[in-house]
Amino acid sequence: MPLNPKRTVAELKELRALTGDENGAQRVAFTPTWQKARRWLREKVAGLPLEIHDDPAGNTWFTLRGETDRALLIGGHMDSVPNGGWLDGCLNVLAGIEVLRRVHDEFRGRPPVTVRVVDWADEEGARFGKSLFGSSACSGTLDTDEARGLKDKQGIGLPEALRAVGIDFERVKESRVELEHAAAYLELHIEQGPVLLDLGLPLGAVLGTFGVERHAVTFRGQAAHSGSTPMNRRKDAFLAAARMAPEIYDIARRSGNGVCTIGACATQPGIVTSVVEECRITLDQRHLDSGALARMLAEAKAAAARFAREGNVEVSWERLWRIDPRPFHPELVELCDAAVAETCGKSHRLPSGPLHDAAEACGAGIPTVMMFVQSLHGISHNKIEDTREEHLELCVSAFDRLARKAMDWVRARGT
Amino acid sequence: MPLNPKRTVAELKELRALTGDENGAQRVAFTPTWQKARRWLREKVAGLPLEIHDDPAGNTWFTLRGETDRALLIGGHMDSVPNGGWLDGCLNVLAGIEVLRRVHDEFRGRPPVTVRVVDWADEEGARFGKSLFGSSACSGTLDTDEARGLKDKQGIGLPEALRAVGIDFERVKESRVELEHAAAYLELHIEQGPVLLDLGLPLGAVLGTFGVERHAVTFRGQAAHSGSTPMNRRKDAFLAAARMAPEIYDIARRSGNGVCTIGACATQPGIVTSVVEECRITLDQRHLDSGALARMLAEAKAAAARFAREGNVEVSWERLWRIDPRPFHPELVELCDAAVAETCGKSHRLPSGPLHDAAEACGAGIPTVMMFVQSLHGISHNKIEDTREEHLELCVSAFDRLARKAMDWVRARGT
Repeated sequence: MPLNPKRTVAELKELRALTGDENGAQRVAFTPTWQKARRWLREKVAGLPLEIHDDPAGNTWFTLRGETDRALLIGGHMDSVPNGGWLDGCLNVLAGIEVLRRVHDEFRGRPPVTVRVVDWADEEGARFGKSLFGSSACSGTLDTDEARGLKDKQGIGLPEALRAVGIDFERVKESRVELEHAAAYLELHIEQGPVLLDLGLPLGAVLGTFGVERHAVTFRGQAAHSGSTPMNRRKDAFLAAARMAPEIYDIARRSGNGVCTIGACATQPGIVTSVVEECRITLDQRHLDSGALARMLAEAKAAAARFAREGNVEVSWERLWRIDPRPFHPELVELCDAAVAETCGKSHRLPSGPLHDAAEACGAGIPTVMMFVQSLHGISHNKIEDTREEHLELCVSAFDRLARKAMDWVRARGT
Repeated sequence: MPLNPKRTVAELKELRALTGDENGAQRVAFTPTWQKARRWLREKVAGLPLEIHDDPAGNTWFTLRGETDRALLIGGHMDSVPNGGWLDGCLNVLAGIEVLRRVHDEFRGRPPVTVRVVDWADEEGARFGKSLFGSSACSGTLDTDEARGLKDKQGIGLPEALRAVGIDFERVKESRVELEHAAAYLELHIEQGPVLLDLGLPLGAVLGTFGVERHAVTFRGQAAHSGSTPMNRRKDAFLAAARMAPEIYDIARRSGNGVCTIGACATQPGIVTSVVEECRITLDQRHLDSGALARMLAEAKAAAARFAREGNVEVSWERLWRIDPRPFHPELVELCDAAVAETCGKSHRLPSGPLHDAAEACGAGIPTVMMFVQSLHGISHNKIEDTREEHLELCVSAFDRLARKAMDWVRARGT
């Protein structure tokens, strides 16, 4: 079948009706609704001569064998957060399926390189708090000791939940074999931010996923009576912490295109009649360049130390999480940029703030690129997540152009 | 008996042994331990020809009748917070009792004016969250509709708790009659702050109790992904709220001797990966001058509006509580200052940040003054609350001098 972007939009709506409710998408990984979505997906490709199987991590692979084993991978995920949007993850998969249909049609079932669509298992991590499960198991970065102990809100462990859907937790890293012949990895995604919307552009080429430094920063002063303690005698932990808020905007600005966020602030004793003794904030810093990310962190630490000293309080840092930046392959970024420009006249290159399975593919050494399509409202993980239908159609066309270019690129690099 | 400040210190220690434990004083109002402390107090004055009775609000009055009904009142409270200090409240009462002994001794039981010590019921409000219960019932400012509904952590209502100790809630305001002949009110108290300690002075004359404006200030922005939302597109409620922290220090400085405190900060959704949508802070502002207090509040509102506007968020204010400043009687402040200077060479005048029963006496139109004695650590409401014993002895002497001057003052003003 030739490429039909309208079909992708229709399939997205069909999926929404099947697996969503008045609160949004309900395809949380490892649940019956997620399994229903996956069965539906297999029915959708029943007419194509694909090899289909689940790997030991629960990722589903749809393979169209080519003249060489060297494979172009196209990734996405059918799972959603609870009360999620209608596009996040499944747009990627369904656009990939549409590309498979076009490739099958164009090459009469035997393309010059192998093309594979992968539906990664549990990208969102909504149930166990650990995102990129299937792709990190496959890439090998999954910390199995940590993951073995994860529990959901009902106290069910991840291994038990996996067993219920036929996955043996102790074998999930055997999925690595799927990447053996991977020569390039492509992923389409809604932007989940306002950049393309602000620029009035439907599509963009993604430069890579941000590296992240995530810390809890705790300032410790002295509780004191709000009425009897003169201002110059206070050791006010909130004052020191609060001074970080404008500071991180300066740090982000100096960094170029990095972002910094204080997402939570908690105060102890936290009562109206006492100076704050202890104030804990979370600081999330992201940048595409690892040197710039390290500088942002160093500047935040220096500022916190200065505010602590000036406020006569103490400060300590606890790292919650970190990940290196994953800059995408420069040649594939060029190809993506060209595909976008050819489709809608103008492109824009931007980093990805959120993580995606593409970061795992990239980290596994596979040349990788992503394409973004504009998000309305700059909102995702919510039932109001949306993208204009004409932009959805455009993105399927542009993504197919990118797949065409990437197949040529894989073939040209092949031994 | 002539004045014996060492006896007061010894009685404080005896009371501590009787009603405290390893965690501090446990004389929470309306509890058996509080009743035990009050029985002990009555035993202590058994040898004096006092009229002793409880009024309808549960305040205990110890009256030494003089040649006139015009009365000098000396106030304090036997109740403490849970795990409280050994001085807060009971020092006031026991110093007052020592003054009664000296007056009885000096005037052979018939002083020129009546002298009364009152042990106010539930100054701390530790159990029902409403401080100054007994004194506000007596002064008439108690909001009985509000107080009737107060419950402790076990769900026991204030009227029920009062009934258990023989107090009829519906009659508490009848205690007002006790103030009929009140001509002056004196109260000694530990400072509960660091001012006298910093100055190296044992004692000070109190100018009045601060007026208080207490608000919750809520900033409302927009939750947004910490990775995908450029800094210049954020509506960051925490940024706007945090900018209030240094601002209130400037506002307090400009006000002269006012104080401002942000005691609590809560963030929603309050997760590491989202810009803060809603941030609620509490703001407590205190000043001795009502005009200055109003200016401090107006300046805080203007700053919050500016930070909200600049941060593209909204702000709303909710008043939690307020009370007018209670400036003490200028002539009594002079007398107090003189009594302190005569006792230890040097005095200092300072406002009281915390509220005291004296604020209710003052509000009821009785000429009022307080004397402060230095607190170590600037800490109270805690078992480490402490004052040097030589300072405790000094304060009893100085307070007795003040009582002597105040009796002369009352007599001189008498009709």
